[in-house]
Amino acid sequence: MPFAPPTSQADSGAYAYPLLIKQLLHTPLAVRPEQEIVYGDNVRYDYRTLNARISQLAGLLQSLGVKPGDVVAVMDWDSHRYLESYFAVPMIGAVLMMVNIRLAPEQIAYTLNHSGARVILANREFLPVLEGIDEHLPDLRTRVLLDDEGGALPDGFATEYEAGLRSTEPVSKFPDFDENSRATMFYTTGTTGLPKGVYFSHRQLVLHSLAAMAALGSAPTQGRLHRDDVYMPITPMFHVHAWGVPYVATLMGIKQVYPGRYLPGRLLELIAREKVTFSHCVPTILHMLLGHPAAADTDLSRWKVIIGGAALPRVLAQQALARGIDIFGGYGMSETCPVLTLAQIDPEALAGTDEELSLRTKAGIPIPLVDLRIVDEDMNDVAHDGIATGEVVVRAPWLTQAYLHNPEASAALWAGGYLHTGDIGNIDVGGYLRVTDRIKDVIKTGGEWISSLALEDIIALHPAVSEVAVIGIADAKWGERPLPLVVRHPDCEVTEAEIIELVAARSRAGDISRYAIPERIRFVDAIARTSVGKINKKKLRDLHDMQASQDIVAGTGKK
Amino acid sequence: MPFAPPTSQADSGAYAYPLLIKQLLHTPLAVRPEQEIVYGDNVRYDYRTLNARISQLAGLLQSLGVKPGDVVAVMDWDSHRYLESYFAVPMIGAVLMMVNIRLAPEQIAYTLNHSGARVILANREFLPVLEGIDEHLPDLRTRVLLDDEGGALPDGFATEYEAGLRSTEPVSKFPDFDENSRATMFYTTGTTGLPKGVYFSHRQLVLHSLAAMAALGSAPTQGRLHRDDVYMPITPMFHVHAWGVPYVATLMGIKQVYPGRYLPGRLLELIAREKVTFSHCVPTILHMLLGHPAAADTDLSRWKVIIGGAALPRVLAQQALARGIDIFGGYGMSETCPVLTLAQIDPEALAGTDEELSLRTKAGIPIPLVDLRIVDEDMNDVAHDGIATGEVVVRAPWLTQAYLHNPEASAALWAGGYLHTGDIGNIDVGGYLRVTDRIKDVIKTGGEWISSLALEDIIALHPAVSEVAVIGIADAKWGERPLPLVVRHPDCEVTEAEIIELVAARSRAGDISRYAIPERIRFVDAIARTSVGKINKKKLRDLHDMQASQDIVAGTGKK
Repeated sequence: MPFAPPTSQADSGAYAYPLLIKQLLHTPLAVRPEQEIVYGDNVRYDYRTLNARISQLAGLLQSLGVKPGDVVAVMDWDSHRYLESYFAVPMIGAVLMMVNIRLAPEQIAYTLNHSGARVILANREFLPVLEGIDEHLPDLRTRVLLDDEGGALPDGFATEYEAGLRSTEPVSKFPDFDENSRATMFYTTGTTGLPKGVYFSHRQLVLHSLAAMAALGSAPTQGRLHRDDVYMPITPMFHVHAWGVPYVATLMGIKQVYPGRYLPGRLLELIAREKVTFSHCVPTILHMLLGHPAAADTDLSRWKVIIGGAALPRVLAQQALARGIDIFGGYGMSETCPVLTLAQIDPEALAGTDEELSLRTKAGIPIPLVDLRIVDEDMNDVAHDGIATGEVVVRAPWLTQAYLHNPEASAALWAGGYLHTGDIGNIDVGGYLRVTDRIKDVIKTGGEWISSLALEDIIALHPAVSEVAVIGIADAKWGERPLPLVVRHPDCEVTEAEIIELVAARSRAGDISRYAIPERIRFVDAIARTSVGKINKKKLRDLHDMQASQDIVAGTGKK
Repeated sequence: MPFAPPTSQADSGAYAYPLLIKQLLHTPLAVRPEQEIVYGDNVRYDYRTLNARISQLAGLLQSLGVKPGDVVAVMDWDSHRYLESYFAVPMIGAVLMMVNIRLAPEQIAYTLNHSGARVILANREFLPVLEGIDEHLPDLRTRVLLDDEGGALPDGFATEYEAGLRSTEPVSKFPDFDENSRATMFYTTGTTGLPKGVYFSHRQLVLHSLAAMAALGSAPTQGRLHRDDVYMPITPMFHVHAWGVPYVATLMGIKQVYPGRYLPGRLLELIAREKVTFSHCVPTILHMLLGHPAAADTDLSRWKVIIGGAALPRVLAQQALARGIDIFGGYGMSETCPVLTLAQIDPEALAGTDEELSLRTKAGIPIPLVDLRIVDEDMNDVAHDGIATGEVVVRAPWLTQAYLHNPEASAALWAGGYLHTGDIGNIDVGGYLRVTDRIKDVIKTGGEWISSLALEDIIALHPAVSEVAVIGIADAKWGERPLPLVVRHPDCEVTEAEIIELVAARSRAGDISRYAIPERIRFVDAIARTSVGKINKKKLRDLHDMQASQDIVAGTGKK
């Protein structure tokens, strides 16, 4: 169909309303000016004060020479100061760079330099790290101390944060500017390669906040966020803006609690004392919290928790539900701001059923405006039958435009006009997404995609199997074939044939494709893991390739 | 503060995501494809069919020569066809013109011509109107019949709607284009002057839908819209897109019921049969519904109703609450898309109290991104104490840019960078807006603004007063002074001095400013009203001015 673009109406003049982060403050200040913001045990103030401190921080940054477009880095635990910088830095047209404090010092130096940061707001606890990389940070001209302890201002620091706020003229009126101005950035780290920078504009953050608020509010009963909730993040504020929820919570005018460093006992204490009802975290942290001695005495029955970062294991979901926690999955990544889907459900019809558990542990349904597809390698949609898998690709108004200064990775990210998540998943008839694998861990064999995770789950059921990792190995006829690497329990025996037959039986039952039945099993002593405990498939593949080469050299290879 | 605009990141390329009406369909089609759309007794289909019919209607319009930028008018009662045109017309880049079927024929002709409509989709019931103004519609080149009855295609019509959908190739893929493209338009009519055209872009409608969904979902308990609601409009689809709620309902994937023409018995029947839980209407219509004989037998206890268009009277709110209806006010106007505020409350703390009633009958709190102020004549904010009044001025991402082809009225609308609503109101410490008056009905005297409505309310309390209207008359010393026009009950007596003393007593009690105490009362036989029953203050002022001139000519004027 031929299509000429229609006449556009002017988008400037008196009526123009750019989507800017400052606009998120209109409603809460009008409606909930006395709502609380809490930081640990030491700080408690209201939204009116938040607004005043944002103006003061903006004034301080300008007095330190920060200009529109400048990058301002922050190194802090979750705090009211971080929340203030979420607003003040972009509201003066500067770019907030959230430093991943868990990175190695040389990686922190790399990301600071790569981002072009000129100013840093750093918690006293990170001074040793900063001092250690000082000579590698030639462009970092201004430092502001974030201090919970009190003490002398270290050399090279312009001011301490609170002293700076007190002594500077606050910004009285924040100007309008282009909504496509960059507002935030941070770095995403994979198992390989250098950290990659992603970035988001004012428009993107406002739209993400609105859509997340709309999605979180509209669930019939469970997993619902409303004005009387109390929010505390348990994924850090440096990580994808704590999933963007601090912006959503502020827009809604709800009480916010910032816990500083994540110590399980401390988090439980804050949940109890501040009556926290809404959080988000990764499975590991929730597991830690539920296992903490103080958890038994803490009422968690009003607590709603979104789980992301990794699939929500059924057993953890069951434990959480047993404690009365309204737990549900969500899905997104650094490149996507991050929220794409949420697994909110209506449990009235489902309470206690296996379907409830199944839905809660999925990635969920797309939030408004998200155009989410699962596609084959030619970008054709696969069936939404809960079985067929494809790569998850997505369009939404809040996806990173590119990786900073990395055109090659950016082109791959946006191949075909959709953002490629690198995840494999299926979608059921109800529209629920389940993420099954990373695409690089999928085994492409005989024209089919085999989930290495699904195959691992089957093999792990054998009582003699202690650990298992499935990798794909090159195969001249099939493209790839699955090779399970198995660690046996010390006091058990199991043969290659027994494991193969276990998979074959499950394949005959329709649980997995017959292409997934392996020809070989390799018994190993241990399975390589990454620093955060994930199976390091890349290393396993490399080890296997090396081993295979040696076999060929030694004349023992089967090829 | 000097401020250079920050560097903007490109907003084009693979990642660009313009906010277009088609994007509202992503989520419901993914998640609720089998959800129902109902039209009266005759039509019932699912969202998948809605989507297919939108594609068919788009194809039909293109086959009729509709190009991007063309204006397509619709004259229909509330129907699934109207909903389809809400999407299909803008999705091909054309502009949907919603014809106000309640206007006089010559006004309909005026608005059609002024809008530049080339194509019209008209219900058979309106053929007599169209035939009557046919010779005045030289630009209307194509007509499509909307027909609930069946029968021959009238002369001059290109096709009947259903036949056209069946016979045309559907549009398979809707293109991206500039989000600032005009999507919808309609005409607003005041008590005076010609109808004025207002218009909204794709971006504006998407943002209005998201913000309304976010606001309606986030109320703690009452007035809350969620995925399992059933929606039926009771303000017509030609009037400010039925307050934009059909777009919100579609975005949320909820069941929608379109009632055709508004007949009270019919509406009650649909509420019962289709289990309608969410509507919006003006006070008059709700009053009619509650007074209908069938209302007594209809369960209304699951029904949520937003009241707009006029203030929600306390007595009507009480009647509705007694029936179990979750009733609350809202505020907006044709120029504002329309939603600005909603009076959703948390009744758990308030149920049954006078405060609950007071909050429900206010205009409410601003929805996200709305920057709403009450200001004096110099655009200074007045106190938010629930007493001080000012003009309601507003900025939001979904306000009409201008009145079409009317630069003078447009400049007044946008004076000072805010849209002037022409309404007077106050805001309480909780951020709730109450609209008290139209600005043209406010009396500006001695530097204060006196609400003519408040003064009328006081005088109306006198048992001998049958009707009262207060107008402002020019005064050399005070600018203006209030002049109450009073109709006495036939069998009662009251003097000028008694009425003046009544107001003075209330002023001493602190209920109204002493500037409101009138010097004179004029007893009259009747009070002029508009065709819809509102007091016609303009006419009263004109009559008074004429009378005053005659008095002066006759030598009886007090001046």
